[in-house]
Amino acid sequence: MDEIYAIIPVSKFKHAKTRLSPFLNEKERENLLKAMLKDVTDTLKNHIDKIILISADEDVLNYANQLKISTIKENDDSNLNKAIGQAMNYCKNKTKKVLITPSDIPLIKKIDMKLLTEKSKKYESVISPSKGGGTNILIIEPEAIETKFGDFSFIKHLKEIEKSKLNYYIFDSFFIALDVNTTEDLGEIIVHGNNTKTKEYLESINIKVESIHGSERLKVNR
Amino acid sequence: MDEIYAIIPVSKFKHAKTRLSPFLNEKERENLLKAMLKDVTDTLKNHIDKIILISADEDVLNYANQLKISTIKENDDSNLNKAIGQAMNYCKNKTKKVLITPSDIPLIKKIDMKLLTEKSKKYESVISPSKGGGTNILIIEPEAIETKFGDFSFIKHLKEIEKSKLNYYIFDSFFIALDVNTTEDLGEIIVHGNNTKTKEYLESINIKVESIHGSERLKVNR
Repeated sequence: MDEIYAIIPVSKFKHAKTRLSPFLNEKERENLLKAMLKDVTDTLKNHIDKIILISADEDVLNYANQLKISTIKENDDSNLNKAIGQAMNYCKNKTKKVLITPSDIPLIKKIDMKLLTEKSKKYESVISPSKGGGTNILIIEPEAIETKFGDFSFIKHLKEIEKSKLNYYIFDSFFIALDVNTTEDLGEIIVHGNNTKTKEYLESINIKVESIHGSERLKVNR
Repeated sequence: MDEIYAIIPVSKFKHAKTRLSPFLNEKERENLLKAMLKDVTDTLKNHIDKIILISADEDVLNYANQLKISTIKENDDSNLNKAIGQAMNYCKNKTKKVLITPSDIPLIKKIDMKLLTEKSKKYESVISPSKGGGTNILIIEPEAIETKFGDFSFIKHLKEIEKSKLNYYIFDSFFIALDVNTTEDLGEIIVHGNNTKTKEYLESINIKVESIHGSERLKVNR
């Protein structure tokens, strides 16, 4: 049995990151998603036995094949948590643990992957928060809990973990917490994303960041 | 010579957190600041030889005395970076390192303090980002660099550190990055701040958080 697989659920390119529209057009949002997925999978690669992307979108699956990662076609009439359930079911009896992560956290570092996989050997579950109450990394035995991605998923996952009497480790990382949903998030990538494909792409389309005076918040322009 | 002192610059209670007005009135913003300062100093205490708060505000200094932390009265005609310079000058020849931190990061954990002080023995400087391009922890030898708190201070501090040929460690922590400036930030405290005075205070004045559907962002009401 393998040690750990990654599960990356990805929605349709067309539905992705609509909050960045009209700041980015449809093609640019697709390119951004591709750059982020490349960054995330490059970082995961060396510490994960197998990366599995699950999506209903043939274009997403084709792109994943180009990146040489495994794919699962999402069932009809699915949703985010059902898709993860489907992928976990596939992983059962093949790997001890699954690491569930979104594709939009390009700042995740190789050192995080080393530490996360170390922690996953010591704890039955590992969880890392996202901004706004969400979960950006969840490591569990396949199907150990039903996932609750969506509103306040961090608190809901902790409840599920406690209900199942699993011990757990909260993995604290700003760079993992920074998923990309708003133009302000793009600013964080430009500040902290040196050596990522994502920052390179944002600069190629002339995205610039400035600070909103006195507020320590980011304003993003092009 | 001592190992490490903390420097906490604090502005006047009246000027604090004005972006939370009118959501919180002046007295409530002062109470919030006090609760955060109590959380931060309680967390720092065991790993720091001396905590020094610098402020121009007598009320702030009196409150610090109640918390049994050392105080310095800020010079006239000062600003944030000048105040830190004044405190660093006081620390020179008394301590090997200073840890500069704002008072508004109540989610900082004791384990962070343990790791930060360990890193500060191995590296000449340690830096931890805030949301929006800022710096929430900076550990250096007193006066080793001139601090650049304000817009994009994280990048500016890295430049100063490199200019001074200091080696450095970037300390990655979501809980340290979460300073409190907006109502959304209050939501993060309610999600992640169990066992903090800050969350306790926010709940005592009936602050509630909900998720903005589909956005994974926080809406804060009372």
